[in-house]
Amino acid sequence: MGEFELLARLRERLGAPGPRVRLGAGDDAAVTVPGGATATSVDALVEGVHFSRETAPLASIGFKALAAALSDLAAMGAEPGEAYTALGVPPDLDEDGCLELLAGLEQLAAETGTTLAGGDVSRAPVLSLAITVVGHGPEPGRFVTRSGARAGDAVVLTGELGGAAAGLRLLGDPALGDALDRGTADALRERQLRPRPRLDEGRALAAAGAAAMIDLSDGLGGDAGHLAAASGVRLELDMTEVPLQAGVAEIAEALGVEPLEFAAGGGEDFELLACVAPDQLGEAGRALEALGCTLTVIGRCVAGEGLALSGRDRREIRPRGFDQLA
Amino acid sequence: MGEFELLARLRERLGAPGPRVRLGAGDDAAVTVPGGATATSVDALVEGVHFSRETAPLASIGFKALAAALSDLAAMGAEPGEAYTALGVPPDLDEDGCLELLAGLEQLAAETGTTLAGGDVSRAPVLSLAITVVGHGPEPGRFVTRSGARAGDAVVLTGELGGAAAGLRLLGDPALGDALDRGTADALRERQLRPRPRLDEGRALAAAGAAAMIDLSDGLGGDAGHLAAASGVRLELDMTEVPLQAGVAEIAEALGVEPLEFAAGGGEDFELLACVAPDQLGEAGRALEALGCTLTVIGRCVAGEGLALSGRDRREIRPRGFDQLA
Repeated sequence: MGEFELLARLRERLGAPGPRVRLGAGDDAAVTVPGGATATSVDALVEGVHFSRETAPLASIGFKALAAALSDLAAMGAEPGEAYTALGVPPDLDEDGCLELLAGLEQLAAETGTTLAGGDVSRAPVLSLAITVVGHGPEPGRFVTRSGARAGDAVVLTGELGGAAAGLRLLGDPALGDALDRGTADALRERQLRPRPRLDEGRALAAAGAAAMIDLSDGLGGDAGHLAAASGVRLELDMTEVPLQAGVAEIAEALGVEPLEFAAGGGEDFELLACVAPDQLGEAGRALEALGCTLTVIGRCVAGEGLALSGRDRREIRPRGFDQLA
Repeated sequence: MGEFELLARLRERLGAPGPRVRLGAGDDAAVTVPGGATATSVDALVEGVHFSRETAPLASIGFKALAAALSDLAAMGAEPGEAYTALGVPPDLDEDGCLELLAGLEQLAAETGTTLAGGDVSRAPVLSLAITVVGHGPEPGRFVTRSGARAGDAVVLTGELGGAAAGLRLLGDPALGDALDRGTADALRERQLRPRPRLDEGRALAAAGAAAMIDLSDGLGGDAGHLAAASGVRLELDMTEVPLQAGVAEIAEALGVEPLEFAAGGGEDFELLACVAPDQLGEAGRALEALGCTLTVIGRCVAGEGLALSGRDRREIRPRGFDQLA
């Protein structure tokens, strides 16, 4: 099957476009009518770097690639709009495989109201997906950046951490799950394979007046440091306040590592870390509760710079180590 | 150098953002205020599939990747706005190499008024670039799609064809240029390495009422067929009318191939093919002349479907053969 035929097959499978999309995939460009202001982000997943086809089904690879991209829109408090996918297809991935991958993308697109509006297909040595997502908002100032935190703000966290890292270990060694009930183990695997971007929660936190926000794609340690640097404040976090997903402690114990290492350094949990003025904490908490999501105060912003982690020996809490590029 | 450090270095090098960009690279997403309607396109270049570092300097690889993406905006008649780059960095490309690649992107971005507003960097087995470009227009109906051609329209072509394919052969075998003067040979190489997207010409043709338009990225034969299929008309093209870039005939003769094969099947010339009602031809031609670009009538639209090429043995005019993906 050639590139054009695959593109045509992919297009046939796309759902109906959203109301902002006036022309979807198949022309030189997709045409949209944006909503006042847009937030645009790109996220790439490369086989052997970010995932392995040995442990991740193709549909979950597509799902997760879109989830990682949409998580950046969640961190802006943006309404998800369109996604564009550059797909690199290796020699051993056939048409059915490409369509399975797309089915995963479509599943999350449908769940989140995102339109798959276009893309490109190319041969490549390994499977790779570069996904550009466009989110909408009424005006630029309504998006929440990383740079608006002020000394005195509380630092809050949605949901629970550590599940994605524990799930990854579990996928690599199913025996690690022997001490867990099936539902708990399934939830850890799902967290790794099909993470849900916190889109509704991000918009709720934006509406509640969050001053700064970031999604935890690289791990609490690293991402909190990025927010601190962008805002010019110091973040003091009490790691004993960080909620862990059920089963994380058991997997960590079986591996002989500190559970918080999964939470702080594991990454890919795609929870949101936000800075909120104390007098808006109540509103933010109620808004998240209405969405069925916990919101936990895990620290505060103070004058200064950098990140201070207390509650455990700091040396145990490392940002995920990125391998050297060269 | 880790991913974050490279991203920071790349950001330092970016020029000032355009007026629509309210927040550039470095946060979770770039923030823009679009102009009524947007046209968005994605184009990916993969080493070993679309280019070789043996014949193409790194700066030209970056330049051409952005050119290929912007050419799709040209074909919509859109004003270039922002570009987002997902960069896959192989083990043998160091920081200086990445910055050289970016310098090529920046050069064309500056020439065209495009803002490099964000992106992602990842390790990858080979060098790859997936570029998403966003163009702007006052309203969706002002963009020119592939599907608006009607029977009776003239088929017009900007500029000259064949140069990119001849330039590629010349890069692979410099001796092929022995019969050419230096300026002609340089222009062929430049056409291959640093193609200029016809952005001004695309907007001029849109303003002159072009009914349908496509850029010639895959070759006249293939792309004219796409336009015919999208519009539901038959395109009758007289290949003897197609202007060839200087030096194409000599390179083709040295290789023992038909010069029109480079024009019809070579691809990557990034000229525009448009369908224009006969009573608007004069306006279109004058608008292009004012931009210093030729506009040549090479055929017409008739009722029916598909593509008819006359003026040469049709068997010689093949769309570029895409290798099988699987």
